[in-house]
Amino acid sequence: MTEKYEGFLKEHRAEHLEEMKTFLRIPSVSALSEHKEDMKRAAEWLVDSLKAAGLENVKLMPTASNPIVYADWLHADSDKTVLVYGHYDVQPVDPLHLWQTPPFEPDIRDEKIYARGASDDKGQVFMHIKAVEALLQTEGKLPVNIKFCIEGEEEVGSPTLEPFVAENKDLLAADVLVISDTPMLERGKPAICYGLRGLCAMQIDVYGAKGDLHSGIYGGGVANPLHALSSILASLHNADGRVAVDGFYDKVVPLTEEERQAYRELNYDEGAVKQELNVSELYGEAGYSFLERTWTRPTLEINGLYGGFQGEGTKTVLPAEAHAKLSCRLVADQEPDDILNAVEAHIHAHTPPGVRVTVTRTDKGRPFQMPYDHPVIQAAMTAYEKAYEVKPALTRMGGSIPIVEGFGRLLAVPVVLMGFGLPGENFHAPNEHFHLENFDKGLLTICAYLKELAHTEWN
Amino acid sequence: MTEKYEGFLKEHRAEHLEEMKTFLRIPSVSALSEHKEDMKRAAEWLVDSLKAAGLENVKLMPTASNPIVYADWLHADSDKTVLVYGHYDVQPVDPLHLWQTPPFEPDIRDEKIYARGASDDKGQVFMHIKAVEALLQTEGKLPVNIKFCIEGEEEVGSPTLEPFVAENKDLLAADVLVISDTPMLERGKPAICYGLRGLCAMQIDVYGAKGDLHSGIYGGGVANPLHALSSILASLHNADGRVAVDGFYDKVVPLTEEERQAYRELNYDEGAVKQELNVSELYGEAGYSFLERTWTRPTLEINGLYGGFQGEGTKTVLPAEAHAKLSCRLVADQEPDDILNAVEAHIHAHTPPGVRVTVTRTDKGRPFQMPYDHPVIQAAMTAYEKAYEVKPALTRMGGSIPIVEGFGRLLAVPVVLMGFGLPGENFHAPNEHFHLENFDKGLLTICAYLKELAHTEWN
Repeated sequence: MTEKYEGFLKEHRAEHLEEMKTFLRIPSVSALSEHKEDMKRAAEWLVDSLKAAGLENVKLMPTASNPIVYADWLHADSDKTVLVYGHYDVQPVDPLHLWQTPPFEPDIRDEKIYARGASDDKGQVFMHIKAVEALLQTEGKLPVNIKFCIEGEEEVGSPTLEPFVAENKDLLAADVLVISDTPMLERGKPAICYGLRGLCAMQIDVYGAKGDLHSGIYGGGVANPLHALSSILASLHNADGRVAVDGFYDKVVPLTEEERQAYRELNYDEGAVKQELNVSELYGEAGYSFLERTWTRPTLEINGLYGGFQGEGTKTVLPAEAHAKLSCRLVADQEPDDILNAVEAHIHAHTPPGVRVTVTRTDKGRPFQMPYDHPVIQAAMTAYEKAYEVKPALTRMGGSIPIVEGFGRLLAVPVVLMGFGLPGENFHAPNEHFHLENFDKGLLTICAYLKELAHTEWN
Repeated sequence: MTEKYEGFLKEHRAEHLEEMKTFLRIPSVSALSEHKEDMKRAAEWLVDSLKAAGLENVKLMPTASNPIVYADWLHADSDKTVLVYGHYDVQPVDPLHLWQTPPFEPDIRDEKIYARGASDDKGQVFMHIKAVEALLQTEGKLPVNIKFCIEGEEEVGSPTLEPFVAENKDLLAADVLVISDTPMLERGKPAICYGLRGLCAMQIDVYGAKGDLHSGIYGGGVANPLHALSSILASLHNADGRVAVDGFYDKVVPLTEEERQAYRELNYDEGAVKQELNVSELYGEAGYSFLERTWTRPTLEINGLYGGFQGEGTKTVLPAEAHAKLSCRLVADQEPDDILNAVEAHIHAHTPPGVRVTVTRTDKGRPFQMPYDHPVIQAAMTAYEKAYEVKPALTRMGGSIPIVEGFGRLLAVPVVLMGFGLPGENFHAPNEHFHLENFDKGLLTICAYLKELAHTEWN
């Protein structure tokens, strides 16, 4: 059966893509304070777009930092309410010189749209708005009640969202939370993600002498902060790729044999990943496959490292400072604070003589895990099959949407992660893009899901 | 007996300092190509200054890069010829924000002159010119013949000087080479340095995936170049501070008991160094004192380290590249090429899986050592005693003047290192300065030395 919204979406496709481009042109980089005004512009753009789609009670709600965009439509025959969460902020764009077209000048080539935020997450937020609009335009009403909550600080760890949700429980009350910010398995293979890794992050600053020194006069006689930092960082992993921090794995829920079997049946092509990334081999914790490592195992990664001379040529300096940025991806039931404590203790225990080390904690978010036999997930599988004509996989994911766990906990709702991005679409990297095939099928999936939920029972 | 030059130097002191300031104002940073024109200006300034002092045959001699300044005066009654070597190039000035006054706006405070190059080495080159001028102005002639050879690439490893010396052996032929680019022991304690460490340097570049990756999607499954680099760098030293590279110490001439005893008798104040540098403890190779470590033991130092995100906040990136700059200080009889081979082999042997590493060799210079009972050194001790009224110490030094060994070898001359800088004058660091007390006494020492050499016998 062809639904009416299908025709509407086909007819307005070019117009929708142009509209999405205007959204992607706003450089809403939450990590950099110079983009403060752009954050506001992006939020205001959403307000206008939601109103135009037919949503009601559309408003910018202030937080301690970037505003949250709220909207709803609550006139459905069904008593079920769907809360859609997404984010309008994006990652920084450096190194800029590696982008083929500028990150904030969206460009469609080869049926993909290239821009920062195209897939993570502005593009997918936009799809939910257009799906609602298509249903309202063609059917005059929605099959279930709907609420939108779109934030502007996901890429910096959602520091203000959890207090916001706690303070607005009634406003946000719903029966299911739907989030599109996770990838499909691969092209043509949609997936529903039932687990996300958590996150915690910190900065290490190592201080030696009071100023930079001549490496001839002092070299060999005074501790070099770059050596100390290298030694601390090297001590964080064992040779087999495991994190060497005491207690790091204590609360990790082990993979079940059933899950390992299900992942094996996905026939994930590690060779293709190697080729795509142009590496001679994949590398990680011994005893786990690539999928298991990235979906179900915690990590500790250095995200940045700097100190001393970085210019052209040689400078024989013994620098006064060295710096590193670290983050951990966490899995159930690791607690961010426990891990930060353990890593910080390890750093202090492994600091060589002659330097002073400070650790500054930055982001944190708990890991998330859902029972995959839940009715709202089974309904999502039906919706996907309609749009993609293939059964979606049940997967977990390596990335973090720190608020998912908090949202679910605070509102006491099940969460469905229904993402349409593809791995290799360069989230967080130069040349981020989004395949338009999943723009089209994703819109159909969302519409079908809202209809499906109207006759699903749970709670 | 008061010499006539003493009165001349006293009388013209203010004028000489103003003149030195104009020299220090030229930002002759050889490591940065943007200062190419400044290098030429500094060389031309020297030409004018040497001519004004009464030197003859003053000329700019081209090299593949910055020109060498030559000058002579060869009408002495003595048959001895002194060759003075120095350099008019300086180190880069970053981090600029740590300078109290701008590096190229010389400022005299508290009887010290602050500027990049004030002590290393433009200030000391200037003193040799003024000493010759003082003798010519007051005595009408010099006690010995003199030649100047001032280069512009010492801070980048003197790549063109050794071929220049090899091609100009007759022009540069002399009986002793005098260089003022080494520090005194401390205030009021002059020193003649009979050993210098050599140098070799390299850059390590580590490459992982073809681009920066999202640490959620890929973290734990793909090698992180920052981890690989930290692990390589940490492997370069043992816990006792020794370099862990196979063969690194093979050709090191051990310290004699006589030398260790002489150094102990200097009663060097390690506590004062700790205080001056504001470190809780000094750190280095086990089994050696601070002086022994920095004067007589080879080192391997990281001079710079960079990769991934360095900006404000957090970026959960798994970067594609990581970089480090390394240099080794060498002692007799280590050969730079042997050490570069050994370190490069170690790096490749310690590269973890999943990354690609390249090593690029940059500077190199052999270590230098002189017999300290040589007559030209004994004559220098006499000259120092006249000016400072104290017997100078015989020392070695941790820094490198890469050409010293090559100069001595190519011209077959003894070398006297007669420096007037003080430790703590921030060579190569922000707020480089030079004590004017040693400007005054240094001028007297140089004048006295030239007179002393006229009745010293050697060869």
